[in-house]
Amino acid sequence: MLGTCIENVRKNVPLVHNITNYVTVNDVANVLLACGGSPIMADDEEDAREITAICGGLNINIGTLNQRTIPGMFAAGKRANELKHPILLDPVGAGASSLRTDTAVKLMKELDLTVIRGNISEIKTLAFGSGTTQGVDADVADAVTEETLDSAVAFVKNFAKRSASIIAITGAIDLVSDGEVCYVIRNGRSEMGKITGTGCQLSGMMTAFLIANPEQKLEATAAAVCTMGLAGEIAWSRMQDGDGNSTYRNRIIDAIYNMDKETLDKGANYEVR
Amino acid sequence: MLGTCIENVRKNVPLVHNITNYVTVNDVANVLLACGGSPIMADDEEDAREITAICGGLNINIGTLNQRTIPGMFAAGKRANELKHPILLDPVGAGASSLRTDTAVKLMKELDLTVIRGNISEIKTLAFGSGTTQGVDADVADAVTEETLDSAVAFVKNFAKRSASIIAITGAIDLVSDGEVCYVIRNGRSEMGKITGTGCQLSGMMTAFLIANPEQKLEATAAAVCTMGLAGEIAWSRMQDGDGNSTYRNRIIDAIYNMDKETLDKGANYEVR
Amino acid sequence: MLGTCIENVRKNVPLVHNITNYVTVNDVANVLLACGGSPIMADDEEDAREITAICGGLNINIGTLNQRTIPGMFAAGKRANELKHPILLDPVGAGASSLRTDTAVKLMKELDLTVIRGNISEIKTLAFGSGTTQGVDADVADAVTEETLDSAVAFVKNFAKRSASIIAITGAIDLVSDGEVCYVIRNGRSEMGKITGTGCQLSGMMTAFLIANPEQKLEATAAAVCTMGLAGEIAWSRMQDGDGNSTYRNRIIDAIYNMDKETLDKGANYEVR
Repeated sequence: MLGTCIENVRKNVPLVHNITNYVTVNDVANVLLACGGSPIMADDEEDAREITAICGGLNINIGTLNQRTIPGMFAAGKRANELKHPILLDPVGAGASSLRTDTAVKLMKELDLTVIRGNISEIKTLAFGSGTTQGVDADVADAVTEETLDSAVAFVKNFAKRSASIIAITGAIDLVSDGEVCYVIRNGRSEMGKITGTGCQLSGMMTAFLIANPEQKLEATAAAVCTMGLAGEIAWSRMQDGDGNSTYRNRIIDAIYNMDKETLDKGANYEVR
Repeated sequence: MLGTCIENVRKNVPLVHNITNYVTVNDVANVLLACGGSPIMADDEEDAREITAICGGLNINIGTLNQRTIPGMFAAGKRANELKHPILLDPVGAGASSLRTDTAVKLMKELDLTVIRGNISEIKTLAFGSGTTQGVDADVADAVTEETLDSAVAFVKNFAKRSASIIAITGAIDLVSDGEVCYVIRNGRSEMGKITGTGCQLSGMMTAFLIANPEQKLEATAAAVCTMGLAGEIAWSRMQDGDGNSTYRNRIIDAIYNMDKETLDKGANYEVR
Repeated sequence: MLGTCIENVRKNVPLVHNITNYVTVNDVANVLLACGGSPIMADDEEDAREITAICGGLNINIGTLNQRTIPGMFAAGKRANELKHPILLDPVGAGASSLRTDTAVKLMKELDLTVIRGNISEIKTLAFGSGTTQGVDADVADAVTEETLDSAVAFVKNFAKRSASIIAITGAIDLVSDGEVCYVIRNGRSEMGKITGTGCQLSGMMTAFLIANPEQKLEATAAAVCTMGLAGEIAWSRMQDGDGNSTYRNRIIDAIYNMDKETLDKGANYEVR
C-alpha cells in the first residue's frame, strides 16, 4: 500500500520549495530528483514568497538558519498556508541553541505545519520547550529502543494530537503518528548516521510524497520514511571492500532512484499501533 | 576542431570567478577542475570586485540569489567588463519569480555579457520579458524538438543579434548562436535532467572555455556544450545495475576529467546552420 | 604513534563547530563523520556564539567569507577562547583579496589560534603581511620542494614561534611545526589538487584530532595531515579505468572512513626535524 505513494510522486513530479541548510542542500536536490520530484531552492524573503506559490509544498530546514533566511521561512510559510500547500518543518539542532529552538517554536506557532520531522531530541525539545540535543545528532539517552518503545509511541501520539501536525521521529526505530495511530518502522541501518544529511534528504523527499498524496498524508509520511530506510538497506548490500560513507551516500540516492512500488511494498518493514 | 578548445583550457588553466548558487557549487568547482580550469568563489560585494580582477572570467548564476549577493554580481560584473574579461550569465529560474527575472534583465542591461546560457524557458523569458518557467526546469511546451527546430534556430539567432551576446540554449537539442550562425548540438542524454546542476556545471566549464579561447568564443561555447553532453554519454555507458543519478553525477565529472581533444573531436555531434 | 591520535578521535567522537565556506561544506561534514567526529555548522553571529559552547573545538574557514559571517567568526572565536577550546584557522585565499587577508590577519590578532593550516602562499601572506596567492591555490613559485625544504622548515618554525600557533603548510611536501620541531610529511598525491576542498576537509578533520588529543596537539596535527595524505594514496590505488576526480573524492572520504591505527602507523611517511 505504501508503494502507491512513491508511484504517485513519479506520476505527479511535485515541485518542492526548499529553504534548507547549505551543508546538505545538494543531496536534498538529488534525492528529490531520484524519487521523482523536482526541487527548487529560494531563501531570500521576496523570492521565497513568490517561488513557494509556483510549488506544491514547502520544506523548511533550520540547519544553517540566519537573520537573512529566517524571514524567508516565515514569508514562504505564510504564503504556503494561504495556498493550502503542505509544509514540513525539519528542526535541525532544536535544543542546541536558543536561536534554533526559538525559531522552530515560533514556526510551529505561526504556521500550520503538515509534518514535523526530526530526531527524538529535537522533537522532545519542541514538545517540552527545552531539550538535551547534542549538536545535530540525537542524544543517546533519548533513543527510541524496544524497551522504551511503548512510552515513545504514547509520546509521539500525544504530541501529534497537541500540535495538530503529523510527527515523524527518525532513529533506530522510526515513529510516524497523526495523533490517532502510529507507524513503527524498522527499516534502515545504523551506518546511515555516518553520512551527513540523511535526515535532511528524507525531509525533502517527504515533502514530495505529501504533495503527491494529498488524501493520505499519514501514509505518505510513513512511505517516505520506509523508502529512505529501505534505500539504506539496499545501498548497504551493494557496498564493497574499501567503500565508506561517501560511497554509501551515493548508493542510497541511487537506490531511491531505482525504488519502485513493488520494491517498496515488499521491503517496507512496519507495524501500525 | 572543437577539441582544440578543451586542449587550450588544459594548457592555460584559467582561473574562473563564480558567483553561483549554494545548491550545486561543489559540483561546479569539481567540473572546473576536471576540465582543466581553476575555480574561485566569492560573492561578498567588496571581495567579489577584487577577486574578479585576479581571474580570467566571471560566471554569474542566479540560482539562490539574495539581497546580499546581488550587489556582488553587479560589482564583479562591472569590474570584469572594465578588464575585458568574458562574463557568462546563467539566469536560473528567470521567469519563475520577479526577483529572478528582474535581476537577470538588469544584469543584461548593465553588463556586457559574453554568453547567456539557460534552458529554453529561461531564455524566452529574457527575450520576451516574461515566461512560463516552471521552477528551474524548462517548460515542456517550450522544448526544442526536431519539429520546432527551424523556428528555434531563428529565435536564438535573432536574440543573439539583439542582445549582442552568444546565446546557448541547452535541452534535448542544444543551440548556440552568435547571431550569424547556429550550432545545433545533439550530444547528451535525457537522464542528465535527473541530476541537479548539470546546467550550472556547464556554465562554470563554459566560462573556462571562453577564457582559454579568446579568439574563438562561439566555438568555445559550442565545445563546452559538446563536452558536457559527450561526458553524459560516456558516463552513461559506464553505469551498472543498481546505479542511479548520484553515481551518474560522479561519472559525468569523471568523464570530463578524462576528456581529451581526440575524444571530443570524435564524439562531438553537431551541425552548423 | 600517530595512529593513537585517530583512535582517540573514534573513541571521543568530538563535536566540531565549523564556520566554513559553502563550496566544500558537505565534504567537510562527511570527512568529519568518516574520521569519527561529529560536525555542526552555524555561522549566524548569535547562533555561532552559542553553538560553539556545546562543541569541543572550532574550525574557521574563510573560503566564502562575507559581511554576515565574519562577525560570527569573531563571536565564536572569542567564546571558544574563553572556554579553552582549540581553534583552527584555514585562511583560504589570504593574499588574493584585501578582505581575505585583512580578516585572516585580524583573526590571528584577536584570537588565540591553536593551528593555522593553509597552503604555502596563504601562510606566507600571513607571515609577511602580503602575498602572491593566485586564487585559492598556492603559487608555483612558493612551492615547498626538496630543494627549498631547508629554508621552508626554517620559515615554518620561525612563524610558528612568532605566532604562538602550530603552523601546518600543506602541499607536495607538508610541514607541521610548533616552533620547536617540524614534521616533514611526504604522504599524499598530486592528483588531490584536482579535487575541490581537500584542504578544507583536512582542516575540519584536524580540528577533531585536536579536540580528541588535548595533550599532544602537535602530534594530532601531524596525524591529521598523514591521515589525509595516506587516504589519498589508498584511494588512488582503488581507481579504475575511466574514473576521475569525482570518484577520487568519494574514495578518499571512504579511505578515511576505513582508516585505523595500524594502517595509519604503517602508512604515515614523515620525519621530524
